[in-house]
Amino acid sequence: MLYVVGLGPGGQEQMTFEAQEAIKSCETIVGYVTYMRLVQELTEGKEIVCTGMKQEIDRCQKAIDIAMTGKNVAVISSGDAGVYGMAGLILELISSQEKELEVRVIPGVTASLGGAAILGAPLMNDFCHISLSDLMTPWPVIEKRLHAASEADFVICLYNPRSKGRPHHLRKALDIMSQYKDKQTVVGIAKDVGRSKEQVIVTTIEELDETLVNMTTIVIIGNKDTYVSNGRMITPRGYTV
Amino acid sequence: MLYVVGLGPGGQEQMTFEAQEAIKSCETIVGYVTYMRLVQELTEGKEIVCTGMKQEIDRCQKAIDIAMTGKNVAVISSGDAGVYGMAGLILELISSQEKELEVRVIPGVTASLGGAAILGAPLMNDFCHISLSDLMTPWPVIEKRLHAASEADFVICLYNPRSKGRPHHLRKALDIMSQYKDKQTVVGIAKDVGRSKEQVIVTTIEELDETLVNMTTIVIIGNKDTYVSNGRMITPRGYTV
Ligand SMILES: C[S@@+](CC[C@H](N)C(=O)[O-])C[C@H]1O[C@@H](n2cnc3c(N)ncnc32)[C@H](O)[C@@H]1O
Ligand SMILES: C[S@@+](CC[C@H](N)C(=O)[O-])C[C@H]1O[C@@H](n2cnc3c(N)ncnc32)[C@H](O)[C@@H]1O
Repeated sequence: MLYVVGLGPGGQEQMTFEAQEAIKSCETIVGYVTYMRLVQELTEGKEIVCTGMKQEIDRCQKAIDIAMTGKNVAVISSGDAGVYGMAGLILELISSQEKELEVRVIPGVTASLGGAAILGAPLMNDFCHISLSDLMTPWPVIEKRLHAASEADFVICLYNPRSKGRPHHLRKALDIMSQYKDKQTVVGIAKDVGRSKEQVIVTTIEELDETLVNMTTIVIIGNKDTYVSNGRMITPRGYTV
Repeated sequence: MLYVVGLGPGGQEQMTFEAQEAIKSCETIVGYVTYMRLVQELTEGKEIVCTGMKQEIDRCQKAIDIAMTGKNVAVISSGDAGVYGMAGLILELISSQEKELEVRVIPGVTASLGGAAILGAPLMNDFCHISLSDLMTPWPVIEKRLHAASEADFVICLYNPRSKGRPHHLRKALDIMSQYKDKQTVVGIAKDVGRSKEQVIVTTIEELDETLVNMTTIVIIGNKDTYVSNGRMITPRGYTV
């Protein structure tokens, strides 16, 4: 059995019971080094297969190969494993290699939900998730989605908003959004959600300081009704209050 | 202290540790009858305030009023409380009534993530959430979002897809999507995720039988690359496998 487990954004408190059970039930745990640290207590005495960043295919292949020997294996991802995580890659590899292997995906709290909770309630109306990484999606496709989502007034959650290799994607994305959204639209920034350095910033499209944003940040751009009250970012659902 | 707690889609296994801790720490639990049953074990001996459907404002107001007396109160929502749930309404009421009350939103696994996990990995590329309920969002706004999201090839998760009062919204939504998406586009239907009647159906825009969809169903429409392998719905992330 191969489990693909979402750990939630932070430490163990944001993990679900079934995620913990899945990890406990496995002999082998496969994951990226950083995430391994988050679940250290649960994995003592187990076989640990750690790989570095950008070794996703290698990591998933190892997990599949070990599981094919009959062991119970858990691949761990931060957040939800099915959101820009390992779940899809595992299933894709199994499909293309025509392997017969039982897989169970265990959902988790994804970064947007974790970030939203500490910002207030920005996701109370229709929203979308866009990754600003163009490693795997061509930039023109990303731009098209930014245009469409802004024009239809979605709340927008940006994953992979900014990294050393892509320092300007966030500003480019905000420029596209300002063609449709007011420059005063509320933007929430949630950094290192659920971890010790957790930090929240509430700003606007216009005033956002990009240099505050790094790779473990989720950026949430409100819709036309989103407002700030008492430091909290709120998107109304539409009730008359 | 007022906690707004997302329980996850199903039973206690899909709840996070911090959600459980929050409920345990409270004297009073407020929620819709159905959800109260899901956490029965945790709430024994506590003050329980149950209200029926469509009494959201009443329910949230009660929770606020009790918390203002100094008690620890948890308002419970299924899934994530900030996704078409109670978190926004609580914060809106507190804001408009200028109350001083500490609120903590505890995130949870929302229905789309829970549904995606049992379908396979449909959310591996950019996706959005659209509610088909026009009780609080005008139908033309919903239509506009359906157009935009389909044109930009988002994976689309439909909440509140169909009810007795709105039997035709889902078909209307699929008709709009077929103006941009191929009629053979994969559609995943996840019913009663995490509950005893849990059920999964993988079909296409064209073949979907609307009568299988009810109010505790999440419908996920793939993008142009989404495929089915071994009964599982997979949206490729873009790796070469
Ligand atoms: C490759 S994606 C993985 C997403 C993950 N599977 C999830 O569901 O949250 C990495 C991106 O997720 C976001 N992210 C992941 N963990 C985060 C955290 N603890 N705080 C803020 N953002 C986070 C960041 O935008 C980061 O660039
Ligand atoms: C008012 S919304 C509440 C959403 C909830 N706060 C969440 O985050 O999942 C209700 C809609 O959520 C979806 N939903 C909630 N629980 C579900 C479950 N267990 N299985 C499938 N869909 C569910 C359905 O589309 C339903 O019509």
